[in-house]
Amino acid sequence: MPKNAEIIAVGSELLTPQRIDTNSLTITHHLNAIGVEVVAKHVIGDDRTRLSDTIRLALERSEIIILSGGLGPTEDDVTRDAVAAALGRKLAIDLQQELILRAKFEQIRRPMAAINLRQAHLIEGAEPLPNPNGSAPGQYIELDGRAVALLPGPPHELKPMLENELLRRLRKLLPGEVIKTRSFRLTGIGESDLDTLIAPVYTKYDNPVTTVLSSPGDLSVHLRARAATEADADELLHEVGDPIAELLGVKVYTEDPDESLEAVVGRLLKQQGATVATAESCTGGLIAYRLTEIAGSSDYFVAGYVTYSEAEKREVLGVPGELIESHTAVSEPVAAAMAEGARRRGGATYGLSVTGYAGPSGGTEQDPVGTVYTGIATTEGTRVLRVRYGMGRTRIRTLAAQFALDLLRRTLMGSYFHRPHM
Amino acid sequence: MPKNAEIIAVGSELLTPQRIDTNSLTITHHLNAIGVEVVAKHVIGDDRTRLSDTIRLALERSEIIILSGGLGPTEDDVTRDAVAAALGRKLAIDLQQELILRAKFEQIRRPMAAINLRQAHLIEGAEPLPNPNGSAPGQYIELDGRAVALLPGPPHELKPMLENELLRRLRKLLPGEVIKTRSFRLTGIGESDLDTLIAPVYTKYDNPVTTVLSSPGDLSVHLRARAATEADADELLHEVGDPIAELLGVKVYTEDPDESLEAVVGRLLKQQGATVATAESCTGGLIAYRLTEIAGSSDYFVAGYVTYSEAEKREVLGVPGELIESHTAVSEPVAAAMAEGARRRGGATYGLSVTGYAGPSGGTEQDPVGTVYTGIATTEGTRVLRVRYGMGRTRIRTLAAQFALDLLRRTLMGSYFHRPHM
Repeated sequence: MPKNAEIIAVGSELLTPQRIDTNSLTITHHLNAIGVEVVAKHVIGDDRTRLSDTIRLALERSEIIILSGGLGPTEDDVTRDAVAAALGRKLAIDLQQELILRAKFEQIRRPMAAINLRQAHLIEGAEPLPNPNGSAPGQYIELDGRAVALLPGPPHELKPMLENELLRRLRKLLPGEVIKTRSFRLTGIGESDLDTLIAPVYTKYDNPVTTVLSSPGDLSVHLRARAATEADADELLHEVGDPIAELLGVKVYTEDPDESLEAVVGRLLKQQGATVATAESCTGGLIAYRLTEIAGSSDYFVAGYVTYSEAEKREVLGVPGELIESHTAVSEPVAAAMAEGARRRGGATYGLSVTGYAGPSGGTEQDPVGTVYTGIATTEGTRVLRVRYGMGRTRIRTLAAQFALDLLRRTLMGSYFHRPHM
Repeated sequence: MPKNAEIIAVGSELLTPQRIDTNSLTITHHLNAIGVEVVAKHVIGDDRTRLSDTIRLALERSEIIILSGGLGPTEDDVTRDAVAAALGRKLAIDLQQELILRAKFEQIRRPMAAINLRQAHLIEGAEPLPNPNGSAPGQYIELDGRAVALLPGPPHELKPMLENELLRRLRKLLPGEVIKTRSFRLTGIGESDLDTLIAPVYTKYDNPVTTVLSSPGDLSVHLRARAATEADADELLHEVGDPIAELLGVKVYTEDPDESLEAVVGRLLKQQGATVATAESCTGGLIAYRLTEIAGSSDYFVAGYVTYSEAEKREVLGVPGELIESHTAVSEPVAAAMAEGARRRGGATYGLSVTGYAGPSGGTEQDPVGTVYTGIATTEGTRVLRVRYGMGRTRIRTLAAQFALDLLRRTLMGSYFHRPHM
C-alpha cells in the first residue's frame, strides 16, 4: 500500500499577501523521491484549536503528517501543544533536551530566558530530532504504520533535519516503492478536446496517475507511475504514455517538462543551422521576446521588426502600398509580404509574420477582432494561415505568438498544419 | 464581529515540487482590504472526498470559504461536486449557463464537446459569477451570514472575477465599517531602501495598515484605513500617505493600483501628442511588447526594431560600423546611435534604445554580464544611462525594460534621473 502525506505549515506570517510557504516544495520533492505522494497542504495561523482540528482531519485520511514551524519559545508557537492535543498525548519537559538547550545558550554566551524551556518539551512517545542549526529540536512520532513529524520553520534548519534525520525514519515505514514520471508538452488543441482525445486511454488506469495542465495555448500531460521497481514503473509509463504519444502526434513539442516551445524552436534552428527574422504587428514584439529568452539565441535570431504602422510595413519590410490599400493591413497577402520582407531584410532562412486585430476596437465584418494572419516565408515559398481567437487583447496576443512559434516548429519538422486549430 | 476566511486551492498539479498556489496571495490581499482575515489556506488534489472533508472543516469554523480551481470540464475537476456534497445540496445543469457556454464556443467557432456541459452545472441556490475570460462561470452561495465562493483557477480568470463580482457580494456580509485604501506604484528604488525611507512614517500607525509589495523593478505601497466614516478614513490616508508621497517624489509613477507603467507612459505620450520608436538589443522586444499591451497604443507607438545582430544595427538603425568596432555593440555611443536611429527611422518624437549583456555568457571586463546602456533621443538631444544589474537573464531583461520605460516617463515629465538606481 503506497503512503499518502499531508504537509501543515504553521505561522500567521504565512497568511499575509506577501508571504508564501516554500518549505512544502522541499518536503514534497523529498517525499516523492521515496515514493510518498503529497495529497494535501495546509497553512494554519498561530491558533491551537484550528491547528489541532486540521491535524486530526489529516490523521484520519493520510499516513504521514509533516508540520513545519511553530516550534519557537513564545506563546505564539503552538505546534507542540496542538499535536499533543490532536493525539491525546501529554507534553512534558525532557531533561536531556533541557541540557542540550542550556548548552546551546552557554555556547553563544547568552542567558536563557525561562520561556525558552518550552523548546525542551517533548510529546509523550516522541523521538527528538537533533537541530544543529537552531535551538528547537524536531520531533518524530510513530503510530502503527503512520508517522507525525514536527520540523522547525526556518529553511536552513528544516532542510538538514529533513534530509539527515526524518527521511531515513520514513523510509523504514514504506514498502520499497519507486515513482517515475513522464510528461508531454503540447499546443494546437484546446483543453477539453485534449481530454476527449486521451481520456479513453488514461481513465482505464489508476496507476499511473494522469493530470492535464493548461495555460492559454499551452498544455501538458503528466503521468506519474508508482511501482516496486524502476523497470515496472517504466513499463507502466510505456503502457499508458505510448498510446497517448501516438494520439497527440506532432502536437507534442517536447517530453521534457522544463523545455519551453521557444527552446524547442531554438534547438531545431540550431540543429539545422538556420536563422529567423520576425515581423510583428498585433503581437507587438512578443515573438521576438520569447525567442530571445533563450540563452544563445543570437546564434539563430537575426532581427525582429515590430511594424505597427502601415508606413513601417512599407518602408522597413517593403510591403507594397497597393497591397495594403486593396487588402487592408490585416490580410493574407500582407502577412505573406511581411514574412518575405522580414526574411529578405534580415537575410534569414525563415521569415515569420503576424498581423491581426487584437482589439478591443478595430476589425472588419469579414475579419472581426481576434482574427490573426500568421505567415512563414521559407526557401520553398510562403504560407499564410488565418485563425480567429476569442476574448481579450492579452489572450489574443498570447495565443497568436504561441501559434506563430508552433508554425515555425512544425515547418522546421516538415510537418504542416492541415487545419489550424487552438 | 470581523469575519474569518479560509482559502482552498484545488488541483493535483499544485501538489508537485515545481508548482505553488499564488492565487491565494491575490485573494488574501483583497480580503484584507475589506477587513477579512485569512486564518487558513489549503491545497487539495483532485480528490472529491478529501476536498469535501476539508470544506466541511472550514465551514465549521470560518465564515468565508473561497475555492479556486477545479472548475474545468473534465472528470478531474471536482470542485463543484465536492462543494455540493459538503453542503448537502444538489448539482444540476443550468439552462441559462448552458446557453452562455454554447454562445462562447460559437463565438470562437469551435464545436463544443459534450463534457463541456459540466461547466454549466450549478450548485442548488448558487448565484453564477460571469467569467468573460474563460468558459467556466464562478459560483457564489450565501448561508446565513456565511459565504462559499467557487472561482476558476487561471489567474487571468480568477482576478477579474474576484475584483468585479465577488468582493462587492462579500462586502454586503460585513459589519458597517468603512475601509479605504491608497496606493503608490513606483520604480527606481530597491525594496529595502524603500522600507528604510518610509518606515519612519508608517510604523507610527497601526491604522492605516501599510504593506509593501515588490516584484523585480516594480514596487507598490498600500495603505488601508478602517474608520467609522469615509471622511475619517480619508483623513487617516492623508496623514500617513502625504508624507510618504513627498518622500517618494517622482519615483511614484501612479496612485492608481491598476495602472501599469506602460499605461502611464502611453497616457503621457497621448497627452503630449508624441510618438515613440524603440530599438532593442538585449531586451529582445519586451519594451515594444509592453508598450503595445495597451489598447489604443497604435496612436503613439510607431515601430520597434529588435536589432540582435551588428549588421541589423548598422542597416536598420544606421549605427556606423566604426562606432561598433571601436566601442563594441554594448556601449554608450552605440546606445545613443540606436536611439537616434530608431527616432529617425520611425519618424517618432522619441527614440528609446537598450543594448546590454543579458548573459549568461558575453560581457567584457569593463562591462560584465548585467551591464545595460539605455538611450533616449529627443528633439533636444540624446542621453544614455549605464546601469549594472545582477543575477539572471530573465531578471536582467525585465529590469532593463522597466528602466527604459521609466526613463521615457521621466523624460516626458521633464524630470531626469540624477543617479540611476534600481
